[in-house]
Amino acid sequence: MEAKSNKPTQNAGRVVDGPTNPMVTPLLTDLYQFTMAYAYWKAGKHNDRAVFDLYFRKNPFGGEFTVFAGLEECIKLIANFKLTEEEISFIHQSLPGSCEEGFLNYLKEIDCSDVEVYAISEGTVVFPKVPLLRLEGPVAVVQLLETPVLNLVNFASLVSTNAARHRLVAGKSKMLLEFGLRRAQGPDGAIGASKYCYIGGFDATSNVAAGRLFNIPLRGTHSHAFVSSFMGPDEILERSLCSSDGSSTCEDFVALVQSWLSKIQLLKSLGGTFGETNQSELAAFISYALAFPNNFLALVDTYDVMRSGVPNFCAVALALNDLGLSGFHPCQYKAVGIRLDSGDLAYLSSEARKIFHTIEKEFGVPDFGRTSITASNDLNEETLDGLKKQYSTPFTFVHIFNHTFPLQGHEVDCFGIGTYLVTCYAQAALGCVFKLVEINNQPRIKLSEDVSKVSIPCKKRCYRLYGKEGYSLVDIMTGENEPCPKIGERILCRHPFSESKRAYVVPKRVEELLKCYWPGKSGKEREELPALKDIRDHCIKQLEQMRPDHIRRLNPTPYKVSVSAKLYDFIHFLWLNEAPVGELH
Amino acid sequence: MEAKSNKPTQNAGRVVDGPTNPMVTPLLTDLYQFTMAYAYWKAGKHNDRAVFDLYFRKNPFGGEFTVFAGLEECIKLIANFKLTEEEISFIHQSLPGSCEEGFLNYLKEIDCSDVEVYAISEGTVVFPKVPLLRLEGPVAVVQLLETPVLNLVNFASLVSTNAARHRLVAGKSKMLLEFGLRRAQGPDGAIGASKYCYIGGFDATSNVAAGRLFNIPLRGTHSHAFVSSFMGPDEILERSLCSSDGSSTCEDFVALVQSWLSKIQLLKSLGGTFGETNQSELAAFISYALAFPNNFLALVDTYDVMRSGVPNFCAVALALNDLGLSGFHPCQYKAVGIRLDSGDLAYLSSEARKIFHTIEKEFGVPDFGRTSITASNDLNEETLDGLKKQYSTPFTFVHIFNHTFPLQGHEVDCFGIGTYLVTCYAQAALGCVFKLVEINNQPRIKLSEDVSKVSIPCKKRCYRLYGKEGYSLVDIMTGENEPCPKIGERILCRHPFSESKRAYVVPKRVEELLKCYWPGKSGKEREELPALKDIRDHCIKQLEQMRPDHIRRLNPTPYKVSVSAKLYDFIHFLWLNEAPVGELH
Repeated sequence: MEAKSNKPTQNAGRVVDGPTNPMVTPLLTDLYQFTMAYAYWKAGKHNDRAVFDLYFRKNPFGGEFTVFAGLEECIKLIANFKLTEEEISFIHQSLPGSCEEGFLNYLKEIDCSDVEVYAISEGTVVFPKVPLLRLEGPVAVVQLLETPVLNLVNFASLVSTNAARHRLVAGKSKMLLEFGLRRAQGPDGAIGASKYCYIGGFDATSNVAAGRLFNIPLRGTHSHAFVSSFMGPDEILERSLCSSDGSSTCEDFVALVQSWLSKIQLLKSLGGTFGETNQSELAAFISYALAFPNNFLALVDTYDVMRSGVPNFCAVALALNDLGLSGFHPCQYKAVGIRLDSGDLAYLSSEARKIFHTIEKEFGVPDFGRTSITASNDLNEETLDGLKKQYSTPFTFVHIFNHTFPLQGHEVDCFGIGTYLVTCYAQAALGCVFKLVEINNQPRIKLSEDVSKVSIPCKKRCYRLYGKEGYSLVDIMTGENEPCPKIGERILCRHPFSESKRAYVVPKRVEELLKCYWPGKSGKEREELPALKDIRDHCIKQLEQMRPDHIRRLNPTPYKVSVSAKLYDFIHFLWLNEAPVGELH
Repeated sequence: MEAKSNKPTQNAGRVVDGPTNPMVTPLLTDLYQFTMAYAYWKAGKHNDRAVFDLYFRKNPFGGEFTVFAGLEECIKLIANFKLTEEEISFIHQSLPGSCEEGFLNYLKEIDCSDVEVYAISEGTVVFPKVPLLRLEGPVAVVQLLETPVLNLVNFASLVSTNAARHRLVAGKSKMLLEFGLRRAQGPDGAIGASKYCYIGGFDATSNVAAGRLFNIPLRGTHSHAFVSSFMGPDEILERSLCSSDGSSTCEDFVALVQSWLSKIQLLKSLGGTFGETNQSELAAFISYALAFPNNFLALVDTYDVMRSGVPNFCAVALALNDLGLSGFHPCQYKAVGIRLDSGDLAYLSSEARKIFHTIEKEFGVPDFGRTSITASNDLNEETLDGLKKQYSTPFTFVHIFNHTFPLQGHEVDCFGIGTYLVTCYAQAALGCVFKLVEINNQPRIKLSEDVSKVSIPCKKRCYRLYGKEGYSLVDIMTGENEPCPKIGERILCRHPFSESKRAYVVPKRVEELLKCYWPGKSGKEREELPALKDIRDHCIKQLEQMRPDHIRRLNPTPYKVSVSAKLYDFIHFLWLNEAPVGELH
């Protein structure tokens, strides 16, 4: 991207690029942040030192975990936060009523050089109430950051979590592709989803722009329209195909395919049930194979999967095999597999697998039985789970070398998931909030009649305590100056609001969660922003470290989030102090 | 935006700006569009003339209408569609396997100068199966457009529809504000939502970037954090406020407010129930009023709406009133109103209204009773509807000039709506599809076991037929060369797939729906892209023209979408031709 706000800025000698989306500017905020900035400035309070926590109150999708994402984009915004003259003039005309010239001069000066950002590492598994980010700095500036930072974290974390949930239910061995661009909530709803689904454990995307921006592997084949744009093999004029080692040329690849199709149609072991296949489809498959002989992948459900798509695919695949090399070779012609986009995926994939195995056996084509099957029809976490658990109906058996195996579930190797994944259809928003917890060293609390909405005051430290089995046991928040929990020492973990809920923990490992990603003027060392691939690896590792009952789909156990005894007492002291005493009449 | 892809391009002598989001480039597409382009090119089919329809199959949100939006951004993409060298080189490395040099040269040449785009006007109320856009051109190029055009239309239409539904349930007299930036699906999920909610009938947004890009009115006040950042009135150092005509200066505005607060606390007509109000809040309100004496609006629920927020607001408002002018004046000091962000909005708004009326009467402040009340707590279509229908509990009465009025429902004048609106929480995606309907003048049909998924073949014309009461009766699609339905002439409208569903219609007015927005090489006149305000007006007018039962919330009547008798026959001829004949064994 060669766009305006993408220019890199330096802080502490290091360069941070601008936000991926050039529309992310200091104006991407709520108007009230600017009206408040003016009111703070008028009151001489704009430089009051404020501490805000960004956190959510409830895990999404009925689960008990969330994957934190969006940090890199926040830091890119913060590192490059500077209002242009033009933006200031727009703010001027947007404020209700007139404002003093001095305020406009103040706006010209502000940046984030005096803001400190502490955050949990991107890709970490996180829980309600624990701050994901803590921003500290001049109150007017930090308030301006509230809205964009929430925007950048909310969807990123939501869709990463959604992707991780899909990965957990699909299992490690399956390939997961993100196919959501066309249905996503706008252009960078799509680009963001591609990035954050990759973090959550997806393998690739169909979105070329996202592939380019983030170096995410790309996948794609052809559509139904491609198939129906052909009339029949007669329209294929250029029919020759060189063998993959260049040693010979097949002058009529179409005829070769057609001869294989006849052999398949006559196969007794397939019951000889194949009649005439669709000729548009056959022509489309042949054309696609001529274009991509090393990577032939066919969408087989435009007309009829079993009566047309699969036999047409197999004929083209066998013809390619004739022209390929024996053994492994990088230019080896290869039929990668088929894609199913409708129908009973368990049944169809199992039936297709049966045919692939039969062809491997009958025609002696090594590995043909392992031809890849991709499914992509409005899939979501629930349908993946259903597919996994289901036996295909009618019961299907595979015969491999005289052994009969019942097919359990499905034979899909790879899932292409779109709409439900990228729009987070099951829950389209995560409710991260941004609360003032301290100003000028005075702790602040936000009360609410709903206890779950009461904020946890004070500038805090947050730790994750691990048990002897390597799983994390509990997160604990303490006041900033309390001593760090020590390995092997008993520590009392209290529920922040429920007096009776508390437990002693003896941690085997203690991890401090909030790290300094933007030091402001504190002189602290700044954490490097890791590469996307490293964030993804971190996320996958994090999920492996979770106790399985916390991350299971059905009735997961809530993970415990606690405060120290000292912080507990302070919260409740402040609460009593602030809450109005009711009067009954 | 001064970004790369935003540069304007000329077509037919007219300039069209690039897409609003610079991330919208020709790479914002699925990889398979490029693999197909290569396969088309290899087969010499890339210039085959294809016609694609973009349409949806089901109205969102359980309703029976949809607002079409996103057209302008599609045309901006199409007008500026050109691959850069760098993009082509990325495509080259992304294609599976090698590709011929000639294809890369072909990619360098392509643009949309030979693509024709017909579309329904943006902001029009539309229905399932009727093409919203029809793209005609070289098959490889039009396929590349499929994904971005779907992306640009899907969310735009979904969120415009959502906004229109909120407007319908709120009624014309209420002010509707879009507050969704922080919870939206990414930065331009938010900016897009602001634009398209405005089209759907919202009045303003909190999103400064969107306000600037699209000239949408901006609204905003202050947050809970602003309130809790103050300790008490003692910290207000600059306390003087000039009267609004500049004739005199109040040296201690804080003292003036405090004197009004005492008077309010003593008011017998309010039951004298007001005790001490929260002093942080009072300080915050005073500071905000000192910054915006012409536009004082206060968030009153940080501590306790009735015991603290409302009396604090009234005291500041009355103090401002002392320093204001009599009669109308542009610089008049003015307390605009309050915002409620929690609790029982019906009850609290009604109680607040009662107090405003009492103050108007007791202190003789004209119009104080009409002080604006804004509500903004996780609102959606359903809660708006619930609020409207509900009597407040306990029953509340207003006493105005010795008359007693029971308060029905609520007293909210203005709704700020965020999460549920902009993420389309009730249904996070619209399922627009893009189907090949003709290639090289050959009509194409896409079959499916699910009848609702069968596509309607042929390049078509689409009309809306109006009845004598001015309401639209039915949409009808015909073959391209059929005569246009005529006013006063009986025409048979058939359900496209159900033989028995048909009706004769005698239209009083006939409107052709698809207009030429991008003429390609056809030499046709190009429709101008209207201003956003005009699209919004068009949408509002369209909804007024709908028969009320089609747009009501509960059990709306489906609007009829039909085909001509001739097109009906042709669809079914083609269907029989393409469908495989089953064999039962």
